[in-house]
Amino acid sequence: MTNQEAFDHALALATRSNIAMLGTVDDNGHPNIRAMIKMENQGLKEIRFTTNTSSRKIPQLKNNPKACVYFVDLDKWMGIMLIGTVDILQDSESRHRCWREGFEKYYPQGVHDPDYSVLRFTARKGQYYHSLKVTDFEL
Amino acid sequence: MTNQEAFDHALALATRSNIAMLGTVDDNGHPNIRAMIKMENQGLKEIRFTTNTSSRKIPQLKNNPKACVYFVDLDKWMGIMLIGTVDILQDSESRHRCWREGFEKYYPQGVHDPDYSVLRFTARKGQYYHSLKVTDFEL
Repeated sequence: MTNQEAFDHALALATRSNIAMLGTVDDNGHPNIRAMIKMENQGLKEIRFTTNTSSRKIPQLKNNPKACVYFVDLDKWMGIMLIGTVDILQDSESRHRCWREGFEKYYPQGVHDPDYSVLRFTARKGQYYHSLKVTDFEL
Repeated sequence: MTNQEAFDHALALATRSNIAMLGTVDDNGHPNIRAMIKMENQGLKEIRFTTNTSSRKIPQLKNNPKACVYFVDLDKWMGIMLIGTVDILQDSESRHRCWREGFEKYYPQGVHDPDYSVLRFTARKGQYYHSLKVTDFEL
């Protein structure tokens, strides 16, 4: 598989996935994983999530912005891991961009709730896995 | 939810899951995630996987054994993250213990194939996630 083919398959998987796994590194140097709803992907370069500002991943990411995002299709035994960094955003444009109907359930004060944060993951490189093969690509 | 209830739910999820996400930290300090087939769990304390000795996670884990294992049930929006370390095992008992029918496909030389390794993850603590709540437990 060429790197371009790997990229194309990876982009299709990321785009059709509603859920991603976000990996971070905690204060003791251990990796942490949690499933998150993908709000938006701009190609494979930028992926946005929302989270409670009070959640544990916020101090982890402030301390260490190194992260990965993993999309997987277990039926096809296909995955992508993207390596990059996360910015924590609370500006008005970012808040409005990722706000969805029903979010008041999580952020009762609405779009300017201080407990509402946007995570913007920016990828630097990626790996596409399929049927035990790994193909690298740069971003 | 008490810690005992969280532990019980977490144990049930780990036991019924065939797939887990293994988190490691690469040489550049970035978290890495990949889906793996769970071979065995002894409670939540020990979880075994198999892998090709030539895979990228082996040098990562030799360099930094800190790891996490994440099980998720997306239909129930329920997850467990276990924090611990990984030992890379190649002794005969470990090889036989995790060997399954059909593994010749991955390890053509059989149970003593040098490209066959067992990963034994040992958990120190865990977090159970359900409906936006997090409950910690020690192991």
